[in-house]
Amino acid sequence: MQAELLAVGSELLVPGRQETNAATITRYLLERGCKVVARTTIADDARALTDSFRLAWSRADLVIATGGLGPTEDDLTRECAASALGAALIREASYVEWLKERFKQFGRVMPNVNEKQADRIEGGRLLMNPKGTAPGQMVERDGKILVLLPGPPREMLPLFEREVLPLVEARSSGERIVMRIIRIAGMGESDVEQMVAPIYKTFSNPMTTILGGASEVELQLVGTGRSEALAEERVEDLASKIRDVLGARIFTESGETIERVVAGLLAARGLKLTLAESCTGGLVTARLVSVAGASSFLDRAFVTYSDQAKMDELGVEEATLKTHGAVSEDTALEMAKGARAAARADVALAITGIAGPAGGTAQKPVGLVCFALDGALGQRTVRRVFPSADRERVIQQASNSALEILRRALVGFEG
Amino acid sequence: MQAELLAVGSELLVPGRQETNAATITRYLLERGCKVVARTTIADDARALTDSFRLAWSRADLVIATGGLGPTEDDLTRECAASALGAALIREASYVEWLKERFKQFGRVMPNVNEKQADRIEGGRLLMNPKGTAPGQMVERDGKILVLLPGPPREMLPLFEREVLPLVEARSSGERIVMRIIRIAGMGESDVEQMVAPIYKTFSNPMTTILGGASEVELQLVGTGRSEALAEERVEDLASKIRDVLGARIFTESGETIERVVAGLLAARGLKLTLAESCTGGLVTARLVSVAGASSFLDRAFVTYSDQAKMDELGVEEATLKTHGAVSEDTALEMAKGARAAARADVALAITGIAGPAGGTAQKPVGLVCFALDGALGQRTVRRVFPSADRERVIQQASNSALEILRRALVGFEG
Repeated sequence: MQAELLAVGSELLVPGRQETNAATITRYLLERGCKVVARTTIADDARALTDSFRLAWSRADLVIATGGLGPTEDDLTRECAASALGAALIREASYVEWLKERFKQFGRVMPNVNEKQADRIEGGRLLMNPKGTAPGQMVERDGKILVLLPGPPREMLPLFEREVLPLVEARSSGERIVMRIIRIAGMGESDVEQMVAPIYKTFSNPMTTILGGASEVELQLVGTGRSEALAEERVEDLASKIRDVLGARIFTESGETIERVVAGLLAARGLKLTLAESCTGGLVTARLVSVAGASSFLDRAFVTYSDQAKMDELGVEEATLKTHGAVSEDTALEMAKGARAAARADVALAITGIAGPAGGTAQKPVGLVCFALDGALGQRTVRRVFPSADRERVIQQASNSALEILRRALVGFEG
Repeated sequence: MQAELLAVGSELLVPGRQETNAATITRYLLERGCKVVARTTIADDARALTDSFRLAWSRADLVIATGGLGPTEDDLTRECAASALGAALIREASYVEWLKERFKQFGRVMPNVNEKQADRIEGGRLLMNPKGTAPGQMVERDGKILVLLPGPPREMLPLFEREVLPLVEARSSGERIVMRIIRIAGMGESDVEQMVAPIYKTFSNPMTTILGGASEVELQLVGTGRSEALAEERVEDLASKIRDVLGARIFTESGETIERVVAGLLAARGLKLTLAESCTGGLVTARLVSVAGASSFLDRAFVTYSDQAKMDELGVEEATLKTHGAVSEDTALEMAKGARAAARADVALAITGIAGPAGGTAQKPVGLVCFALDGALGQRTVRRVFPSADRERVIQQASNSALEILRRALVGFEG
C-alpha cells in the first residue's frame, strides 16, 4: 500500500514555517506497513490543487490531504478533491443543523459562509471532528482511499487515528514493519558509514538509512516480515552485526537521546554528578535536567564564565589560569575538582572552550574545547577542536561531546 | 514569477528526516519576488517522478529539483526531467573527461557508472559543481526555466546562488519584496491575532502571516512595490499601526531571538546579570551565553536543583523552604538575592518551578513556575502556571518567560 500526502495552504509556504502533519502521518503509516511515496505542500490555488489531487489519485492507493477545510474563500480542498474525482458536492442538511447548534452553544449565530463545511463529496462520508467545526471526509473507490483532514494537528491527529489507521491496518497486505533506531555518538557520519555500509548493504531487508547530525549519527533499520516476530528477527540479525563492529560507540538502539541514556546510567549507578560549565553556559546541565527524575543524580551545577568566577566558585588557581589559560586541560581539571568538592558530588565534569566568533588565536583557535572528568569514574581530560565558525554549533557540539565523555566513562568504554 | 520545487530521494521520506533545501530556496526566491506555490518531496520512482516533473512544468515558471543526480541506479532526476520535457539526454564527452581527471586527482579510477553524470538534457546546459561530481543542469524553454541541482545543501546552495538567483532577478517583473519579522513575547497567538487581525486584514499589501510558538508569536509582513523604497514604505505603514496597538510587547522587528534582544539591552545598559535556576536547569543562562559577547554582561550563574543547594549556594533560609516550599515566590526572591550577592551582580533573576511529570499537587500543580528579579531593575516576583503535561515544554516556556521578564524590566514595560 502506497500513500501520497497533500498539505494545503499558502501560509505553509512562507519562510520559516514548518509543516508538521506530513511527518507525523508518515511515521504512523510506515509502522502499519504503508509507505509514503510523495508529499506536497501546496498553495490555496484551485487549479494547482485540483491537478495535484488528480496526480496523487492516479498513482497512490491512499491520498491524505490536510488543511483547507475552513469556511473562507481560500478553503478549497473539498471543491478541488471533488473535481479531481469527477464527483459532485452534496450539502448535508443534518450537518448544517449540527454546526448551527454548535455555534449557538458558544452564544453565536453561525455565519452563512460556514454552511459549505457541510459539503460532502458524493460517494464519501463526513468524519465528525470533536475539536473544530471542519469535519474530515473519506471516499473509498476503485480500491483506493481519499481522506481529507483538518489542518491543525490537534484536530487532525484524533481523526487520523480514529478513522484512517484502522483502515490501513485492515488493508495492509499482512506485512508487518519493525523499525529500530540506533544512535552513535563521538563519530562523524562518514566514519560510521565506512564501518557499517559494507554490512547493511548486503541486506535488502531490513532497509537501512543513515542520518548525520551534530556529532551524532543515526541508523534507521526498517525490517518487514509476515509477522512482527519475523520482521523483528531480521532487524535483530542486522543489528547484531552492526553491534559487533560499533560496540559501545552505540548509545541507544531505541532512539533515546544521549542525555536520557546518561541520566539512566547515573541513576542506575547511584552516582551524584555536578558540572562546571564555561563556554557551554549551562547547556549540558539543562539537557540533563530536561530528563524526568534528574534530582536523583544532580543537585547543583556551576556556570563560571569569567576567570574570576572560576576562582571564586571553583577554587581554580590564579597561577593555572595565568600559565595555561582559561581554555586548557589544566584549568578544566581544576574546575572539575573544585565543583566536585563544592557540590560534594561523586563525579564532576568541566567544560571550558572558545565558542567564538572572537577570542581565537593560532595556538587556541575558535572551536577549541577542553573537558575534564574527576571523581568516581576516574580522572581524565580531553581536548577537542570543533571545526566550525558558528558559535551555536560549537556550543552544541561541545555539549554533545561532554555527554559522550560522561557516557563512555559510565560504561567503561575507552574508544 | 511562480516556482515549484521538487526534492528527490526516498531517504527524504523516512521518519525523522527533515528536507531543508526547499525552505532555503523558498526564502531566497521570495526575497527576489518569486513565490513558491508548491513543493514536493518524492521517492526514487521513475514513473512518479516523471509525472511530477510534467505537472510542475505545466504550471510553474520556474521548476527547481534537488537531489537524484548521483551515479547510482536510484538517481533518476536527469532521466525523468528529460522524459517529462520530451527531450533526449546527450552524454557530454568533455565532462566525462573532466570527471575522470577529478577521480585521478584523488588517486582513484572513475567507475563506469559515473559516466551518466555527464548526461545533459538536450537544449540545456550543465552547471559546474566545484564541490562534488554531480553537475547541475538548466533548461530554458517557452519562457520557463527548469533547474536540476545536487541534493547536499553545501553543493546545492553555491550553484543556486551563482546560476539561479541572477536569472530570477533579471526575470522578476520589477516588483521588489520587503519582508519584516515582528516578534511578540508573553502573549498567546490568539490574543495577538485578536489585537492585530482587524488592522492587517485591511491591507492586501503587505500580506501578513501569523505564526505561534511556545509563548512567542511571529508576524511576517511581506510587502511588494515597484521599488524597494515603495515596498518598505508599505511595510512600515502597517508595522507602525501594529506598533500602536502592541507597543513594547514587540521585542523585535528584525527577526532577532529574545535572548539576543535581552543580551543587547544588558550590554547597552552596562548591567551585570546573574541567574539562579532550579527547574530550568541552566537553560536560561545557556540561551544568553549562546549570544556572542555574553561575557560583557554575565560572568557566572547557579543551577540549584535541590533545597540543600539553594541553601548552600544562595543562602536561602531553611525556614522559607519549610514555610513556603521550594516552588514559591518567597524562595525565588531569596534565590535571586543570594545569587546577586554571591556574584556581585547588578541584577539577578531566579526561576523555581515544577516541570513534572511528577511532583505536582492540587495547590502547586505541574507547570507552576515562580520567578524573582532583584537589583538595579527593581525587585519583583511573578507566578505563572504553564498548562502542559510535557516536561520539556514547561521548561521551554519557563525559560521564554524568564527572558521576557528580564526584557520588560530592561525596557521599563509593566504589561
